Amino acid sequence: MNAKISIRIAARVLPVTVMLIALAAPMALRAQEHPEDNLLPSWRNGQAKMAILSFVHQVTDKSSPKYVRPEERIAAFDDGGTLSTEWPIHVNQPQMVFARQRVKAMAKQHPDWKYQPPFRFILEDDNKKLDQCLKDPWNKLDLLRATYGAMTVEEFGSVVRGFLKTAKHPKFKVPFTEVAYQPMLELLDLLRAHDFKIYIVTNYGADFVRELSESVYGIPRDRVIGTTPEYEFKESPEGGYLARASNIDIFNQWAVKAENIQLHIGRRPILVAGNTDGDLAMMLLAAGGKQPFLNLLVRHDDAKREFAYEENTDKVLRAAQSRGWTVISMKGDFNTVFAFQKK
Amino acid sequence: MNAKISIRIAARVLPVTVMLIALAAPMALRAQEHPEDNLLPSWRNGQAKMAILSFVHQVTDKSSPKYVRPEERIAAFDDGGTLSTEWPIHVNQPQMVFARQRVKAMAKQHPDWKYQPPFRFILEDDNKKLDQCLKDPWNKLDLLRATYGAMTVEEFGSVVRGFLKTAKHPKFKVPFTEVAYQPMLELLDLLRAHDFKIYIVTNYGADFVRELSESVYGIPRDRVIGTTPEYEFKESPEGGYLARASNIDIFNQWAVKAENIQLHIGRRPILVAGNTDGDLAMMLLAAGGKQPFLNLLVRHDDAKREFAYEENTDKVLRAAQSRGWTVISMKGDFNTVFAFQKK
Repeated sequence: MNAKISIRIAARVLPVTVMLIALAAPMALRAQEHPEDNLLPSWRNGQAKMAILSFVHQVTDKSSPKYVRPEERIAAFDDGGTLSTEWPIHVNQPQMVFARQRVKAMAKQHPDWKYQPPFRFILEDDNKKLDQCLKDPWNKLDLLRATYGAMTVEEFGSVVRGFLKTAKHPKFKVPFTEVAYQPMLELLDLLRAHDFKIYIVTNYGADFVRELSESVYGIPRDRVIGTTPEYEFKESPEGGYLARASNIDIFNQWAVKAENIQLHIGRRPILVAGNTDGDLAMMLLAAGGKQPFLNLLVRHDDAKREFAYEENTDKVLRAAQSRGWTVISMKGDFNTVFAFQKK
Repeated sequence: MNAKISIRIAARVLPVTVMLIALAAPMALRAQEHPEDNLLPSWRNGQAKMAILSFVHQVTDKSSPKYVRPEERIAAFDDGGTLSTEWPIHVNQPQMVFARQRVKAMAKQHPDWKYQPPFRFILEDDNKKLDQCLKDPWNKLDLLRATYGAMTVEEFGSVVRGFLKTAKHPKFKVPFTEVAYQPMLELLDLLRAHDFKIYIVTNYGADFVRELSESVYGIPRDRVIGTTPEYEFKESPEGGYLARASNIDIFNQWAVKAENIQLHIGRRPILVAGNTDGDLAMMLLAAGGKQPFLNLLVRHDDAKREFAYEENTDKVLRAAQSRGWTVISMKGDFNTVFAFQKK
């Protein structure tokens, strides 16, 4: 088994090594094809791509002083804004679009919603007032509780699958299973090929993301760590089942993301990718370990192909700049942003 | 990738099929070798072994109406009393032996422990009074809080590894890494070979069990679901780290075991193995699903090779008997109990 893994690693590491030698010798490079294009084709050659390829090479090459054993190659990825588009949150974020659809579908059973924010603003399609209202996290929790809870986990999965089959991204007009960033999908593939264990660590609902994690990201359900309601085991004549209570038990953001990495994984990550202050604790956790690490901060600076915004990035951007972490510019580093935009 | 997996499954399922045909024709069986001996050699041929082999065959044979896709082959195993010996708990259970050692090592910094149960009874080696005292769960929590908390997760891991290297089981006089039941280790191997995803779901501390899960059971750290303290992310000059608080956040027993399966895995198990009422909710969860399932209840009825006891088994035994779940008799079904007992 171990021998097999070693052979696979060797076979896969080789192209990265070849590429690094090629990059280090630009004169030679011009005379040949660009071998690094095969590895992360949707990334432009630049510092971010170089940092990724160099790191992957160093931690997987057995002769490297930075070698990390496969079982310790833990990678933690935020979802919204890091793996997939989510801006503006109250309009385009998949779980917010889901919540809005649910409010409209459930409105008949809740006549009071006509008068009660934030439900009222959703029923009236008043994005401006909704945005203002949801700045208060308690209003946001009200919305999530009303639309995500009080059913079995199987029922919830089925409702989400129905949503993912029919709903379209309001701006890009494609299903939410197609709004992942193409360069990040390639990065996931590269890491998988080098025996990284990849986890999604998101403030989105875990059970929501689990319905697309396998098909979109190739990440199994048990590697999705997210916000969760209280689960309640209930007996039935057949045996038992799990219900989603209406309260949120774990809100997976900021320090909680780092704490949940211990709860779910039990190892420090050596690679963390995020895009807001909510991901800073995970990055600090990687930085505080004894292993080599790579922190990737995605910046949304591409108003043409995606969106340009800087909300909730003050702290993480300062940390990235002062500590020399890798900042990814969507505008500068992504050749392609979405697969559907390819000509 | 999928084609490869299918070939591997086919190759591995074949012996199970051959064996089942052989068992169904006892006359023919006598004339040849016992092919089932190669699969679970430490199990005696009987109902439990037959139920296991039949189930594994049915859910992995693509032509079977009970076929279950590999990603849904979730198996949840209790640890103490199911995978390894733990009786009597306050004397021989590994995490209790650990707690007792820690009390003695830390006694100098806690002069009050000389007067304060349960610490006092540990320092006086009074097992009888300790046993009585720990029947009150609050006293047990006091003990676990004092000996398992208030350090970083790395420090805790290092203390546990030191314990596992030096401590011996009080009765069997072997390290705690050698007190797993040999037939259960073979069952884990069989399930792994048939692409089951195996999780430990234990009331023991998750971080304690993680220090032996990979080497003893071949189960990676992130598939250990157990009792956990509150984790606290703290910043440091290098970045950050996680501390174990002194309070227990999740006590993983009874309904919580089923609820934590949703939190960590997000799928119903199709195979559950346990030995007490604490495992009943997990078994009911498996029984309540739409997939075929196998619930295994280990009974401790072998005073000669292990221990004979029935504590906390009323409900689960009644459920197993009325619902026809598979009961494993250590005396009747285990050829060998521990590898170290082999001649």
